[in-house]
Amino acid sequence: MINERMAELGKERSVIREIFEYGNKLKSEIGEDKVFDFSLGNPSIKPPQEVQKTLENLIKTESPIALHGYTSAQGAASVRMAVADSINNRFAVGITPDDIYMTCGAAASLTISLSALCNDGDEVIILAPYFPEYKVFIKNARAIPVEVKVSSNDFQIDADALERAITEKTKAIIINSPNNPSGAVLNENSIKTICKILLNAQNKYNNPIYIIADEPYRELVYGAKVPYIMNHYDNTLVCYSYSKSLSLPGERIGYIAVSPKSADKNSVYAAVCGAGRSQGFVCAPSLFQKLVERCTDAVADIEEYKKNRDLIYNALCEYGYEPIKPDGAFYLFVKSPEKDAKSFCDKAKKYGILIVPSDSFGVEGYFRLSYCVDYGKIERSLPLFKKLIEESKQYE
Amino acid sequence: MINERMAELGKERSVIREIFEYGNKLKSEIGEDKVFDFSLGNPSIKPPQEVQKTLENLIKTESPIALHGYTSAQGAASVRMAVADSINNRFAVGITPDDIYMTCGAAASLTISLSALCNDGDEVIILAPYFPEYKVFIKNARAIPVEVKVSSNDFQIDADALERAITEKTKAIIINSPNNPSGAVLNENSIKTICKILLNAQNKYNNPIYIIADEPYRELVYGAKVPYIMNHYDNTLVCYSYSKSLSLPGERIGYIAVSPKSADKNSVYAAVCGAGRSQGFVCAPSLFQKLVERCTDAVADIEEYKKNRDLIYNALCEYGYEPIKPDGAFYLFVKSPEKDAKSFCDKAKKYGILIVPSDSFGVEGYFRLSYCVDYGKIERSLPLFKKLIEESKQYE
Repeated sequence: MINERMAELGKERSVIREIFEYGNKLKSEIGEDKVFDFSLGNPSIKPPQEVQKTLENLIKTESPIALHGYTSAQGAASVRMAVADSINNRFAVGITPDDIYMTCGAAASLTISLSALCNDGDEVIILAPYFPEYKVFIKNARAIPVEVKVSSNDFQIDADALERAITEKTKAIIINSPNNPSGAVLNENSIKTICKILLNAQNKYNNPIYIIADEPYRELVYGAKVPYIMNHYDNTLVCYSYSKSLSLPGERIGYIAVSPKSADKNSVYAAVCGAGRSQGFVCAPSLFQKLVERCTDAVADIEEYKKNRDLIYNALCEYGYEPIKPDGAFYLFVKSPEKDAKSFCDKAKKYGILIVPSDSFGVEGYFRLSYCVDYGKIERSLPLFKKLIEESKQYE
Repeated sequence: MINERMAELGKERSVIREIFEYGNKLKSEIGEDKVFDFSLGNPSIKPPQEVQKTLENLIKTESPIALHGYTSAQGAASVRMAVADSINNRFAVGITPDDIYMTCGAAASLTISLSALCNDGDEVIILAPYFPEYKVFIKNARAIPVEVKVSSNDFQIDADALERAITEKTKAIIINSPNNPSGAVLNENSIKTICKILLNAQNKYNNPIYIIADEPYRELVYGAKVPYIMNHYDNTLVCYSYSKSLSLPGERIGYIAVSPKSADKNSVYAAVCGAGRSQGFVCAPSLFQKLVERCTDAVADIEEYKKNRDLIYNALCEYGYEPIKPDGAFYLFVKSPEKDAKSFCDKAKKYGILIVPSDSFGVEGYFRLSYCVDYGKIERSLPLFKKLIEESKQYE
């Protein structure tokens, strides 16, 4: 009688959230120190000092009526100007404030972009492994997710697989680099390959195909270079969030940047505005808009993540696990020592270790571990990871 | 090629926003003191002192990682507990934290509730005059808005009109009291009449019909009593926002409360969670969730709005206008001195007066004036309102 699809979505919840909630319950039962929750991508490092100071300052000195008032639906002009300047300074793409639409975070950026671009029944390609909510967001726009696996040896693009997946109904492809859950960064070669295939398909079907670049982890890289898609492909929308770069995941602040070179750019931008309006995003939270204006280029101290990565990566290798060495984000994607990753992750629970089986990311036989947790916690978990793989080997 | 409906929505924008943006442009051209912008419901009074102090305090003393981190999708448990307590203390409806879902403000509350309840082609009744975005939000849920005019003499319910509008496809009715744009409060008699008609229709069609109570203005009343719908009708969802009560419209914080007596309550709540997830609302902004937990019952000083109301209402009456005396909110709904309200509002622009013609609210022949502006500004506008009606009378 009500919308059963929504009730289903609400009941099942995401696998990741499910494990996170289980972890909270477990903590209250057996004590926080005995639970090692590697399930959720909840940043564990403080926002940059600049953020803290700017917040205090804004609240103390600005008129609260202006500070907390509505902004224009697409975001305050001064905020969009700061964002556009920051993008141009780094990537020289000639973007203007009128190409920027401020959002309530990356998820909102995605649902709005998808609804703006897609008509019922359009196809949207996602590269597996992928963030599981992509499928939910694509279906929200009444479009159809089409999965393409990346190459399993280096997690770069599989050109043949991508070519095979494109049809006349392909409206967009979501590229997420650095990737959640694998931590892999698509190198320039992969990006060029993708763009070439899309250009050919655009010509063949005489229809624009858009790249939706989901980039919340752009700033979280350990030496790797992340190509800026707009410099390689015109029909691009960048979905950004400050959740990770400024360590403010709960505050829901990000943006959509429409490439000034997009075909029919004004209509695409208008559709973004229309989709935001339609879904009830009146404006992005105003205090954090004004914060972003003043801290556009600040980045949380990712050295801590790098230390965490090195600690857990090296230890797991030593114990006999086979993790993908991540170039970015704060996830480690590890081959499951047992064929059935779900059953392995269930075994891990007995040790208080919460990790996510890869099935919901669109590939089998891996688990994901978020290492955005306390260093000491990782240290204390290591003997348990060792026992866990030893136990698994007994059953081989 | 892209979604044309979204592009249309983005291009047309709302009539109200359009006038607001025009006002900003005009201000930069002829000077802020010469523009009298009564177009937008942007609160003009400060947040309560408690809000300011709590914000300063949270930022100074709480761990930033916890303060700005993700919360559960439905909102932090402690926040939902505070909200449930506040509702129970005032209305004794026996609501629990698990009936509360924190949102990014009233618009999000509405789009989520509508998507949770409606299937494609369901009908949703709205009472004219109505907030124009209701139609956009209903269509977002792929449902059909059905308009029912309230009684034009007292702006209470027209029972016959409501009965005629209900069909077997009716899924919900949106009730907005105090009302935007009229400022009218539906009295207990009207609420009882509505509930009786809905109960009969539920029995007739053997289908639940939900009341969606959109209540951002509940706290903004000048003596009138606003019945709490859950005490009159079981299948009720309350959509609340702290935008007006705490004067934080840009911060996007509110909630959905599902009546614990709703038919199939658990599924309704799950569908709310599913719809929020589907549209990319990961969680309501975390800092403002924690603020709400500590300031649940604070209310901005509405005496200022009352002073504004009395000033503008009395003056317009004196000049020969015929406004509806508002019991709540901060809007004055005034009969247009010319039959064509649009042309009258265009005339007003010449005086720098920005008011909204009533056509987009679903009724003809009125204009809406938001009196949530500076008292001095209203005072200075009065001679212009006088000239405006005198000019109009010349053309009669």
